[in-house]
Amino acid sequence: MAFYQANGCSRRLKQAGVLLSLLISLLLPVHAEEQLVQPQHWQLLSPDKQIALELVLSQDALTYQISYRGKAVLKPSVLGLAFKGQPLLKTGLLADKVSTRSHDAQWQPVWGQRAQIRDHYNEITLQLREHAAPGRLFTLVFRSFDDGVAFRYQVPAQAALKGDLVISDELTEFAFARNFSAWWIEAYRNLSFEYQYMNSALSSVSVAHTPLTLTDEGIAVALHEAALVDYSSMTLRNITDNHITLKADLMPWGGVNAGGANFRDAGAGTDAAAQVERVYTKAPFQSPWRTIQIAPTEAALLNSSLILNLNEPMAAGTDTSYIKPGKYMGIWWEMHIGEKDWSPGPKQGATTARALQYIDFASQHDIDGLLVEGWNQGWEGQWWQRPPTFSFTKPVNGFDIDKVTAYAKVKGVELIGHHETAAGISYYEQQMADAFKYYQRLGIHSVKMGYVGKRLDGREWHDGQFMVRHFKKVVDTAAAHQVMVNAHETVKDTGLSRTYPNLMTRESVRGMEYNGGSPDSGNLPNHTVIIPFTRGLSGPIDFTPGIFNFNYQKHRPHNRVPSTLANQLALYVTLYSPLQMVADLPEHYAPGGKLHPAFAFIDAVPTDWQQSMALDGKIGQYLVMARQDKHSERWFVGATSNEQARTLKLPLQFLDNNRSYDLVIYQDAADADWQTNPMAYQIQRRLVSSKDVLTLKLAPGGGAALELTPH
Amino acid sequence: MAFYQANGCSRRLKQAGVLLSLLISLLLPVHAEEQLVQPQHWQLLSPDKQIALELVLSQDALTYQISYRGKAVLKPSVLGLAFKGQPLLKTGLLADKVSTRSHDAQWQPVWGQRAQIRDHYNEITLQLREHAAPGRLFTLVFRSFDDGVAFRYQVPAQAALKGDLVISDELTEFAFARNFSAWWIEAYRNLSFEYQYMNSALSSVSVAHTPLTLTDEGIAVALHEAALVDYSSMTLRNITDNHITLKADLMPWGGVNAGGANFRDAGAGTDAAAQVERVYTKAPFQSPWRTIQIAPTEAALLNSSLILNLNEPMAAGTDTSYIKPGKYMGIWWEMHIGEKDWSPGPKQGATTARALQYIDFASQHDIDGLLVEGWNQGWEGQWWQRPPTFSFTKPVNGFDIDKVTAYAKVKGVELIGHHETAAGISYYEQQMADAFKYYQRLGIHSVKMGYVGKRLDGREWHDGQFMVRHFKKVVDTAAAHQVMVNAHETVKDTGLSRTYPNLMTRESVRGMEYNGGSPDSGNLPNHTVIIPFTRGLSGPIDFTPGIFNFNYQKHRPHNRVPSTLANQLALYVTLYSPLQMVADLPEHYAPGGKLHPAFAFIDAVPTDWQQSMALDGKIGQYLVMARQDKHSERWFVGATSNEQARTLKLPLQFLDNNRSYDLVIYQDAADADWQTNPMAYQIQRRLVSSKDVLTLKLAPGGGAALELTPH
Repeated sequence: MAFYQANGCSRRLKQAGVLLSLLISLLLPVHAEEQLVQPQHWQLLSPDKQIALELVLSQDALTYQISYRGKAVLKPSVLGLAFKGQPLLKTGLLADKVSTRSHDAQWQPVWGQRAQIRDHYNEITLQLREHAAPGRLFTLVFRSFDDGVAFRYQVPAQAALKGDLVISDELTEFAFARNFSAWWIEAYRNLSFEYQYMNSALSSVSVAHTPLTLTDEGIAVALHEAALVDYSSMTLRNITDNHITLKADLMPWGGVNAGGANFRDAGAGTDAAAQVERVYTKAPFQSPWRTIQIAPTEAALLNSSLILNLNEPMAAGTDTSYIKPGKYMGIWWEMHIGEKDWSPGPKQGATTARALQYIDFASQHDIDGLLVEGWNQGWEGQWWQRPPTFSFTKPVNGFDIDKVTAYAKVKGVELIGHHETAAGISYYEQQMADAFKYYQRLGIHSVKMGYVGKRLDGREWHDGQFMVRHFKKVVDTAAAHQVMVNAHETVKDTGLSRTYPNLMTRESVRGMEYNGGSPDSGNLPNHTVIIPFTRGLSGPIDFTPGIFNFNYQKHRPHNRVPSTLANQLALYVTLYSPLQMVADLPEHYAPGGKLHPAFAFIDAVPTDWQQSMALDGKIGQYLVMARQDKHSERWFVGATSNEQARTLKLPLQFLDNNRSYDLVIYQDAADADWQTNPMAYQIQRRLVSSKDVLTLKLAPGGGAALELTPH
Repeated sequence: MAFYQANGCSRRLKQAGVLLSLLISLLLPVHAEEQLVQPQHWQLLSPDKQIALELVLSQDALTYQISYRGKAVLKPSVLGLAFKGQPLLKTGLLADKVSTRSHDAQWQPVWGQRAQIRDHYNEITLQLREHAAPGRLFTLVFRSFDDGVAFRYQVPAQAALKGDLVISDELTEFAFARNFSAWWIEAYRNLSFEYQYMNSALSSVSVAHTPLTLTDEGIAVALHEAALVDYSSMTLRNITDNHITLKADLMPWGGVNAGGANFRDAGAGTDAAAQVERVYTKAPFQSPWRTIQIAPTEAALLNSSLILNLNEPMAAGTDTSYIKPGKYMGIWWEMHIGEKDWSPGPKQGATTARALQYIDFASQHDIDGLLVEGWNQGWEGQWWQRPPTFSFTKPVNGFDIDKVTAYAKVKGVELIGHHETAAGISYYEQQMADAFKYYQRLGIHSVKMGYVGKRLDGREWHDGQFMVRHFKKVVDTAAAHQVMVNAHETVKDTGLSRTYPNLMTRESVRGMEYNGGSPDSGNLPNHTVIIPFTRGLSGPIDFTPGIFNFNYQKHRPHNRVPSTLANQLALYVTLYSPLQMVADLPEHYAPGGKLHPAFAFIDAVPTDWQQSMALDGKIGQYLVMARQDKHSERWFVGATSNEQARTLKLPLQFLDNNRSYDLVIYQDAADADWQTNPMAYQIQRRLVSSKDVLTLKLAPGGGAALELTPH
């Protein structure tokens, strides 16, 4: 009843349009010692008033609900926490203090998809207290942006929560108002994140990783989290089997019923949950932000900076002098296609001579770095099936790292370090400081981390608090030695690069490697038009595009890269990464020493952007992305399709109206097809202006890549 | 080496085209006591030679592989069995005897999608023996049809396998040659089969129910099983996480680590598997057929009778006099939309007066049956959350069953019985014989079974051997009392209706009920264009179409049936069931006593067919199905779309060339849309011939229903 009155108020409130002053008027005073009888209600609108967040505090719990353009997205959804050995922190809450504020500011990341980011939101903070003993205190902070809603739990230092705390569960619900179409990967599996996405009704979701992307007529929603610091990752479990209420399921520590598969049953909402140790902490602490990104279209989701906005600015005086986005090559793909091997021996990939070949090619094409996997000692045999034996300071025989780094320096290329830990964290941490010192001495400013293995140290999940803590150490140590980090098989991104700008990119995706290295299960053609709308919302993807050779008959007769040549070029624009790999072999880019004409696009495309705009797209079908170079007036456009051919209209209205542009377009030839004729391409040049509307014809698995230079 | 020689042979063999004689020439004689050293190889082609099955017997195992039109579908895939407390029955096998035969015959089902079915295959039988002790014997029988491959294990009576046996695992693999696009639902969940399907790469499948449908360029594949008798259901587990080898995972008995969720971890291929009790049996026994349906298109999969062909003919002298396909109504949908209730009280649905209203309507429209849920005693309160208290012979107060059945008889309608067990099998079986006797006395020849609940008797899966055994008892008892069975929440169909023709139809799907009864998670519009290609391959679906009222503001403000009126009509053709519900309320079909003009299609459409042809379709997008009435020359066509509007060409070449037809077409109005304008329809009449090509315009969530009567 009180709820509907409050709704009445909120409607008038919207009419008045004056949010904050009126919000205050909604705050009924509560006598500290008097138990709450009447539900209290608050509302927070987004600056553009399209998103409405409603909060209701009743005897049972504090709940939140969200509507977008007047239509319900989330029904009342419970909030609360559970500490091991304590009653749930959920019921009988009083609001001691409620405050609101607005914020509107601009900031500039060191690198990114956008040179200038607006951080604009309304905020409401509820300081809550249990009426009954033990009278625990906690605070919920909600922010409403034009592109979504976020909230976080804060637990202050207090007598009722002294000493070590174990979070056994987070009660946060996402109770959807209707069944959406969901794009998701399942959590609690062995190869975290390295799966192709599933599309199903939301009601069929079991337990999903975030970002979880949901679509319905006129709306796209993505659930994720921001600022994951000294906490465990949030996954989302369907607690109403075959219905549509999801609940936070924090990845547990391995100490409790270790053994992997059982963790599914220790998932939040199950009987076992209360016994599971998910987060080790102490008051004061705060949770990561729980984020609900909302947009009118699937493509519009890609234009949000909400996750970055919810992270802390970098500390004043942070050294960013060594941080440079750029392209890199690697002695890597030749291992995946079976030409070479990581191990020492006749097929050893990491040799001085081979490295010099790569450096020569990279130098001719302003490619900044060279990764050499297998550069160090310890790769013999089945390295991933035994406790790690790697040295991180001793190069393998046949690879003269001093000679290679010296030669690289002369050529204006830098070696990229590689720390494959085989998931042996304790083993690695003993050598970590020396390892980074070693790189600094060699003038190496970038490292690729690897954590291949089902569990860290044999028992911890790749996305639990154990990894979050370890990875923070890696980023800090790397920064102390002026090294940028590119992390594979690590925890998901939550926007921490705003705070730690040397945290450049990561894998956390089923990458290109599956198309070469996997004997049978390469990616499907729709994969690269799914991940920008899902995994891509969390941060940069080191997917490693740029394959120019589609024939591995020699070692991988059944493997295919499921794309055309033009699609490979377009991926440099549709998949964002500040460190972008040029993944194929020099001799595949310049067969017989003659450079492939299409390589000119890779030569031209930058990796740091003034602005980025998803122009059009449908998850799993196609994507058209436009980006402007951060250091010139040039624009680049990438368009990719799934297994179906399609024709797309591309209005060039994003261009400056007052000038014309030289267009170079790399696209599929008429008879191109990823299965039968992947190499067929054409390059066309013409003069265009912002009034032009181009017609892009994409082949099955095809694409188009455009470079637009002011005339 | 021997393998490739044999391949050489098999290639010549194909050229020669003379299959069987040459096959014999491939059988190298084996001395019984001499251990196998050289792998042996056999090949079996489908009659049309498009499908090639290759068998290789080596020291390690017997493997099979399948290619279609020269392209690999399955790589060598292991076969074998595991008995609890015994070594795996897999390695060191000798082929004592190998025989082949061909079969080509026609048969006529009592009812079905086709009046005449051709059963045409080549067969090879391998009698195998362990070389070493205990020297167990088993036989594998393979059949190669033009529309797929099937095989089964047979274990003869023998000294080495005496007494009670427990099958702890089946080793059967399906090692796919490449990554397909998969349409699947997850096994080991609480509401067996009542989920919307997921679409993902095969590599993302965890553990799936069958039928599992897979697509790739130029091929569609469905994995399932046939003739599931006194065995447990086969599910398919991805044993190469993130890759594409699936393995049989037989649903276990609940006795071992009961508790539900843990069963995931007892899945085949896990450490726990060997301890799990999956099938209780004794030699001699045989497994169900493992089926691999193969077709050039997704639509062509729907034209296969492979599953029925692999079931036994009904016993001679089976009484089929009471078995009649037909339409039925029910006091049922009004409960789902909140107008009425199953329980006694003010909203009681099962009343004499209401039943008579339905009977009057049914009688006017030649609808054969009336289901009355809640007709019996025991529905008070939360019946699904307590041990069952139902009586199966005592009607509820307010429902005079004698009066209703007598009135129905006069009107030429029959009451349909209802046995809701609330998953209390032991409780139900005590009353089962009396219950069917009771129906026979009342002249009731059809029953709807219900098994609502997470586990049977609190511990057994709905698709384990326990249910298979129970359900067989139900079908036998029903037959003994001349009753047809329509089973809900039961084990999946595997074609047993060929053997037991009173087993008419079943649910085992997320049905229409979710659109009315589920507070928030109705089906998505694509659901009804997914299930014909997946669930529908196993057998008839009691989906309950025919909703004419799309507005439930009163009790279900947020619910929607995700289709247009024309789509509801088309479902009578696209979704096959010999017992087809006319699911809505009489007053919704005849508002104010005036019959809705579109009801004429439901009046006309039959439920038993001379022939059925899927003409065109894409899983999750659309389906066009044509069927000819079994008892007239009339044709009916149904076309349905997902959430997208689309235009389809419909060539009428399936019609008799020598005559013209009166067409009545029920289709979406130009402005129809399932969300905004579901009732907008149009009816058109014209004369057509087999040379005509119709253009069907389907609205979002729309459809078209055609009746074609010889002129």
